Order: sequence, then structure tokens, then C-alpha cells
Amino acid sequence: MRQIRIVLTGFGTVGREFIRLIKEKSERIKENYNLELRLVAVGGRDGFIGSEEGLRLDSLSEARPGSQSLADYARNFHMPLTTRYGKADVLVEAAPTDVERGEPGFTHIMTAFRNRMDVIAISKGALVARYDTVFEAAKANKVRVKYSGATAAALPTKDIGEISLAGSEIVGIEGILNGTTNYILTRMQEDGLSFEEALLTAQQKGIAETNPDLDVKGIDSACKILLLSNDLLGTHYSLKDLSIQGIDQVTKEQIAGAKGRGMKYKLLARAHKQEGNVHISIAPMEIGPGHLLAAVDDTNKGIVFQTDTMGEVCVLGGSSSPRGAAAAALKDLINLYRDH
Amino acid sequence: MRQIRIVLTGFGTVGREFIRLIKEKSERIKENYNLELRLVAVGGRDGFIGSEEGLRLDSLSEARPGSQSLADYARNFHMPLTTRYGKADVLVEAAPTDVERGEPGFTHIMTAFRNRMDVIAISKGALVARYDTVFEAAKANKVRVKYSGATAAALPTKDIGEISLAGSEIVGIEGILNGTTNYILTRMQEDGLSFEEALLTAQQKGIAETNPDLDVKGIDSACKILLLSNDLLGTHYSLKDLSIQGIDQVTKEQIAGAKGRGMKYKLLARAHKQEGNVHISIAPMEIGPGHLLAAVDDTNKGIVFQTDTMGEVCVLGGSSSPRGAAAAALKDLINLYRDH
Repeated sequence: MRQIRIVLTGFGTVGREFIRLIKEKSERIKENYNLELRLVAVGGRDGFIGSEEGLRLDSLSEARPGSQSLADYARNFHMPLTTRYGKADVLVEAAPTDVERGEPGFTHIMTAFRNRMDVIAISKGALVARYDTVFEAAKANKVRVKYSGATAAALPTKDIGEISLAGSEIVGIEGILNGTTNYILTRMQEDGLSFEEALLTAQQKGIAETNPDLDVKGIDSACKILLLSNDLLGTHYSLKDLSIQGIDQVTKEQIAGAKGRGMKYKLLARAHKQEGNVHISIAPMEIGPGHLLAAVDDTNKGIVFQTDTMGEVCVLGGSSSPRGAAAAALKDLINLYRDH
Repeated sequence: MRQIRIVLTGFGTVGREFIRLIKEKSERIKENYNLELRLVAVGGRDGFIGSEEGLRLDSLSEARPGSQSLADYARNFHMPLTTRYGKADVLVEAAPTDVERGEPGFTHIMTAFRNRMDVIAISKGALVARYDTVFEAAKANKVRVKYSGATAAALPTKDIGEISLAGSEIVGIEGILNGTTNYILTRMQEDGLSFEEALLTAQQKGIAETNPDLDVKGIDSACKILLLSNDLLGTHYSLKDLSIQGIDQVTKEQIAGAKGRGMKYKLLARAHKQEGNVHISIAPMEIGPGHLLAAVDDTNKGIVFQTDTMGEVCVLGGSSSPRGAAAAALKDLINLYRDH
């Protein structure tokens, strides 16, 4: 039995769900993969709680998301909130982050590297803002980085390109990678709503955030295709190299027109190799019923890989939820440490 | 650079395509994975040709599929056809096979195990007929078995269950796993043909074989879902444990009726956990437009995994061709020997 000591940064809904999954799945993971998972520290805004013997999963599973719960835990179990944590094998990075500076994720990740820890990123900020720096530092420290939770979560994307298409050349990637914008476009399409009306519906249902810009302006989709392209197509791009158009200018009339022609509007994130260059664009596009992504509605996501030897391989589905994102990080963790 | 010495059994269209891929991809595989592939023996009906320095890929790439070409190669390059081959790392098993006895694949695989070689199966006979025997022998000899080429080939199936869904519990699998029957049903649906007429069309186009029983009676689909269930759902089934119904009894009238209700007939292979048991069935079923596999037409294939933490994950596409099947075996080879 191999013991894996885990540090988690960020105790939001996804971070808490990750803790719940460790609790729920630990016996099965021992049996199936010979891995014993131990959560040795959790960090929030005000510092880390930590325990070499492992933190109490039952207590954290029931706590409210947010840094206050870590302070409460520290008080209840008579421990300090610290700026450092003890020896561990892997950092699961799920702190709130921004895609311009990538903090605090970037600092968490660099600290982990210096401690010779592998990193599983759920937050995308650090990778998007400083992709090359992060991967060069990982290489220099001989550690590994996984980030399924940052590229469409429970929808497998990077796995497919890396494992299922190994040996094929990927010549293009096309995806509906953001559930919120897909939900808004579906409401516009099916219920005849304007963008503003559909956005409001999404906000009322808790699907869109109060500040929906990252989603509706196409930034979230751009971040995901950027990471996939840098990883699978060998680019070294950052957001400024991409052509990004959101869905906030799509009108009722455009949607109705498309519908009349038997088409649907979808926010497509595309990366294509062309004469040695890779061009990436994010834009709302009309797609017809023959398109592999035509049936991807509501908060669902999907991705198509075009290859030279395996034809087109398309993946759809994967729960768009905190539990799905946490499950994607748990998958990364198992794949890092299982016997191959 | 790690050198991988490969033995191939079976020089049919898929075997030859595998050799073509090694030739086409060898430089890129060196660069990307640090693996040098060397084909050291190829076996057919009358014996093996072999060379420690590697057989001539250019010559074999252009030869006609079939054992006669191996005899020709032996004569042209002044070597004997032998019953044994030299030291190697991996067997790629692509000989014609039957699903009842699993020969000659079973013998090839057992010989490889005794020589401490890993095995990549493209032919499914040995695994279907003697699943437990094969995997117990692999374990006893401390070698590994991969078989993407035997379970829907370029459509990723086992990878998804093993890697992309690691840590999730798979509670059900449902797939359109056979391109020939899906083509026949599509022709019946779209062109109003009878089963016999659609089968004839498929035979004329080289999609269905002269003896189409394995496909149209559902056996091929059954073999694939059997392997996936034994591997991912922990069953120890053989074909006799499955409920298998083909498409040869589907009538024009049934198809027309379904079409009238907005439904399609598809040959679905399904494995479901229920109260600790796994039930497997293969049968033509009506599915509606909301079904994740509804758009899988012609020779295309698709599979849906139902999970406890990631929702439903669906994979579609993957070229149904000898090149696609060979690419699946090449993927297995890379994933066996790459650095993880």
C-alpha cells in the first residue's frame, strides 16, 4: 500500500467536494489501486490547517465552503492556522484565481514544486497566465502536473489526446467547452429568449455567476482550448494570441434565422494546424444537424479531435458540477500514482 | 532511447497496416516518446520470417496481405520460414481467429507469455474464448495485455473506463460497437431497404463479409461488450452468459414504424450493474433523438459510460478501417512503454 499525502489549496465548493470524494472513495481506491489517500493540509485565505496523521474528513465534508470553515476547524481541534505545511506528495490547487496574474495559484504551485511535490490543478489561472514558466519549473524540479479539472473537468479532454490518441497526429480540436454559455444559447434557441433574458434565467438557476463576463465573453472557453493546444499541439500561446469572441452580441434574430435553416448557434473553441501554424479562435458559430457536437445542449460540453490515423474522435457529457470537477482531480491523482 | 522489439502474428489487411504505421510514424515516435520500434518477426499460416536487425518495412508495406507474402519475403531475402522467433518485447496478435476456440491467437499469446513478452491483441478470439486463462497466465508471467484493437479499435473504449474514469464507479455501459450492422440498419432506415437488400449493399461495398453471421447475429458486438464488462465491471463471463440477438430478424415494417415515431433502430450492446449482478444484452432497440448515440449512423460506432461521479461520458467516432484498428494497436504499444 502506497500512502499519498495530499495538500489542498482552496476550500470552495469544488475543494469541499474533493474532500467528500476522498472520504467516500478511500476504501475502494485502496482495493483497486493500492493507494492510501491522506489529506494532510488544507489552505485558505488566512492560512493552512494541517495534520501529519490526516485531517478529519467527516468534519470538513460537512463544513460550509469558504476560508472561515478552516479557521473554525483550527479552533475546534486546537491547532494554529499556519503559513506552511508539512511533508506531502501532491498539491491539489483549487483556490479562486484570476487568469491575468494567476494568483494565488501560481505561488501555491511554485511552493509545491520547490517541495518536490506533484501538482493537480483545478483552477486554471496559473496555467493560463504562466504556462511555460509552470511547466519549465515542473521539469526542473522533476515533478509532474495534471489539470483535467481545469480543462472541462469530468469531460475527458487531455486524457483523450494524450492516451487514447497516442501515436496519432492531432490536426484539429473543436469543442463546446463552457456549460454556462451553452445553456444560455440553448435557452435562446429553444425558448426564443434574448441574450439578456437567457442570462438572467441562467443566473437565477445558479448556472451563471453574478459577474458572468469570464463565461459569456468567451474567456473560459479560450483558457481551456489554450491549455489543450499548448499541451497537445505544441504551441506556446497565451490568451493575447487568440481570437476571442463571446456570445454577448448574439441576437434573437440571428438565432431565429439559424433555426429557420435547421442550424444551431454554439460557442465553438477551435484550434487548427495549418501549414505548420496553429490558429485558435473562439466564436459563436452556426452548426448543422450533421455536426458531431449538434446534440450538445443545455450545460453539456463536448469535444472533437481530428486525427490522421483514427479519423474523428468525439467525447460528450461529463457532469458539469463541483462533484464532476472534483472527480476529475481525483482521476488525475489516481493516474499519477497507480501502477502502469 | 528504448528499443522495442515487436513480433506480429497475422499478415492480413490490419497487420500490414500496422507495419505501414510503424514505418510512417517511427521518427515521430522516437521524438515524442523516446521509443525505437523494431519489427523483428512476422508470422503467418506457414511460419515466421525474422531478423534481429529488423525486417524491411518498405518491402512488407507494399506486399499483398496474406501468408504467401511472407513466403515470398523469405525467398527474396534468403531466410527460412521458421516455427520460432528470437528475443522480443511484445507480440502484436492479429491472426484470423475464431471466437469459440480462440486459435491460433491463444497459442501465439501463451508462447509470448512464456517468453516474458507483453501482448497487444487485435484479434478478439483468444480473449473472448479464454479470458480468465489468458489474464491469469499474464499475471503469473508478470506481463501485460492490451487490446484496444479488439474492442472497437479507433473508438476509445477501454482507455476511457480505465484512465478517464479512474476513481468513478461505472454502473453501466451501452454501445453501438459494430460498424457493419449499424451501416445495414442505417440503409434500412434511410433508404427503406429490407434487411436482405441492405446486407447485399453492405457486401457490395466491402463493408459486410461474404459470411456476415458474426456481425449480423450480434456476436461481434457481444465479444466487445464482454471484454469491456470483464475488464471494467469485474465479471468473469463468456459468450454463453450473454443474451444475444442480432439484426437479421428486423423487418422493414418495424423500421418504418420506429421512423414514424421519430425513433431509430440501433443494435445496442449493454452491460448494467443491478443489485450486485451485471446483466449483458445485445439486441436491436428503438432509440429516440435525445439518446447520446442517436446520431451514430453508417459505419460509425459509439459508447456511453454511466458513472456515479462524472455523469454520463460518451465517445463517438474513430475510423472503422484497417488503419484505425492498426492505429489502436500502435496506441497500446506506446502506452505500454512510454514514461508515465
